[in-house]
Amino acid sequence: MSIVVVGSLAFDCIATPSGRVNDVLGGATTYFALAASYFTQVRIVGVVGEDFTAEHESILKKHGVDTRGIEHAKGKTFRWGGQYLDNLNEAKTDFTELNVFESFQPHIPPAYKDSEFLFLANIHPTLQAQVAKEMNGVRLTGGDTMNYWIKATPKELADTLKLVNVLLINDTEAKMIAGDSNLPRAAHKVLAMGPQALVIKHGEYGATIFFREGAFGVGRHPFRAPALPIEEVRDPTGAGDSFAGGFMGYIAAQEELNREVLKRALFYGGVMGSFAVERFGTKRLQCLSREEIDERFQIFRELTHLE
Amino acid sequence: MSIVVVGSLAFDCIATPSGRVNDVLGGATTYFALAASYFTQVRIVGVVGEDFTAEHESILKKHGVDTRGIEHAKGKTFRWGGQYLDNLNEAKTDFTELNVFESFQPHIPPAYKDSEFLFLANIHPTLQAQVAKEMNGVRLTGGDTMNYWIKATPKELADTLKLVNVLLINDTEAKMIAGDSNLPRAAHKVLAMGPQALVIKHGEYGATIFFREGAFGVGRHPFRAPALPIEEVRDPTGAGDSFAGGFMGYIAAQEELNREVLKRALFYGGVMGSFAVERFGTKRLQCLSREEIDERFQIFRELTHLE
Repeated sequence: MSIVVVGSLAFDCIATPSGRVNDVLGGATTYFALAASYFTQVRIVGVVGEDFTAEHESILKKHGVDTRGIEHAKGKTFRWGGQYLDNLNEAKTDFTELNVFESFQPHIPPAYKDSEFLFLANIHPTLQAQVAKEMNGVRLTGGDTMNYWIKATPKELADTLKLVNVLLINDTEAKMIAGDSNLPRAAHKVLAMGPQALVIKHGEYGATIFFREGAFGVGRHPFRAPALPIEEVRDPTGAGDSFAGGFMGYIAAQEELNREVLKRALFYGGVMGSFAVERFGTKRLQCLSREEIDERFQIFRELTHLE
Repeated sequence: MSIVVVGSLAFDCIATPSGRVNDVLGGATTYFALAASYFTQVRIVGVVGEDFTAEHESILKKHGVDTRGIEHAKGKTFRWGGQYLDNLNEAKTDFTELNVFESFQPHIPPAYKDSEFLFLANIHPTLQAQVAKEMNGVRLTGGDTMNYWIKATPKELADTLKLVNVLLINDTEAKMIAGDSNLPRAAHKVLAMGPQALVIKHGEYGATIFFREGAFGVGRHPFRAPALPIEEVRDPTGAGDSFAGGFMGYIAAQEELNREVLKRALFYGGVMGSFAVERFGTKRLQCLSREEIDERFQIFRELTHLE
């Protein structure tokens, strides 16, 4: 099975206490695609500029990622610069140059239409809705968003949430959408807006999945997966997108679609996030093996499971 | 088996978005004792004033708590007033009247000397050390501290840490003691100061226990237990002390002292913390059954365990 992901490709300039890199290939879609590629075939829809070379593309192609949906536009690729200083949980943005991404209009190649899974990375909710409608035969649609759209386009976001089966956001975003400072209450308000399941990412504390009553199984008990206590976080950029890639990629590789699958997917999300932060940019995600991933899954299990 | 707990008894005035109470029996020792009483016999060492009546004492006695170590001094009992407004994770202190607690000198009744477990609630580290030395035959000593002592009496605290087997503190306290903003790194620095195990409480995200290499078992892999996502937190006062009571109480009731016991204890800590916040003050801790506790333990298990 395969998954289509729609969103940003970028060149990042990142500074952390461990060092600095310039113009490395990043963007939500790149992290997502590399993380998911260890589980399933990934197909990208995005836009890049003339500075995006065959070498950049080969980073993705080496992982079997279908790049036919990457539009090559005149101009420069989206660029982002940021630094993490005292607090590795929060990036200070130095600059954002949208470039060709500013007028991005997602076009789904006809060859992608048989994909059974879809992930809407963080872009304008109206574009997300447009893609979701075009791919409305998929078995499951996952989605992300951010504080900017929650504030600027709440109506459009509400429309998109009706088309998303599993939303993946962080604590602050969930509380903002719901207008409620209590997390489980906020979760149930977000679920009432459309999604059947809601994954709330807690950074270094892991993630919780909340289910709508009866969705993917019985009851509405939530489930928590840990994050790995990591002594050396080199670069937190893309951790959330790698989490989403591990989560959605694992799901796309399963025959069944039930709560147990979604719970395990939550663990695999944490696993891929934990790898992503070990090195700068996508370096670590480029050189993994499925064995390493399953070994770490086992560590996550031992971290949380009683005998 | 029984556990001796040394620390504060207080009357609290608490305001939260759910309401307000005045002069209810509180203090770290009260929460700890009630939570631990569902697992083992608890013996209190503390001080109260003339306003502490037989009725107050009966709250503890009803739970089989040994109150012979409560000294009745001339004057008023320690009083604390605080409120939780927007953020239920952080109390704003309205007033602190130490009263008889200011000159507290712990005296261990001879009848307590055969207890096998000891918990040093948050008091001056020099008093903690004095009690730990007096009770040096115990199988396990647990301890707590706070930012005030970490800043004001670092040398005394360092001496006390050498006498504590399991330290229970929160993220901020661990980072402060270690002078390191990375949590697992901070944990290993704290462990190097004395304790064999360190429990770091993450509030609504649960808790992690870190082990010194070889302590209570093999390796130094940490373990995480969840907190329950609770839609209605009425009063967070005493959640951490109730956690400690559940954790230490469960341990004190076991024959063995190994990693599996400490991991389960971490779950029981979360369970007792989750009950404490459901009603004001110690109300909920006063009227539990062991069946309710084990039912909730099962919910914690389902919240985190894959099939």
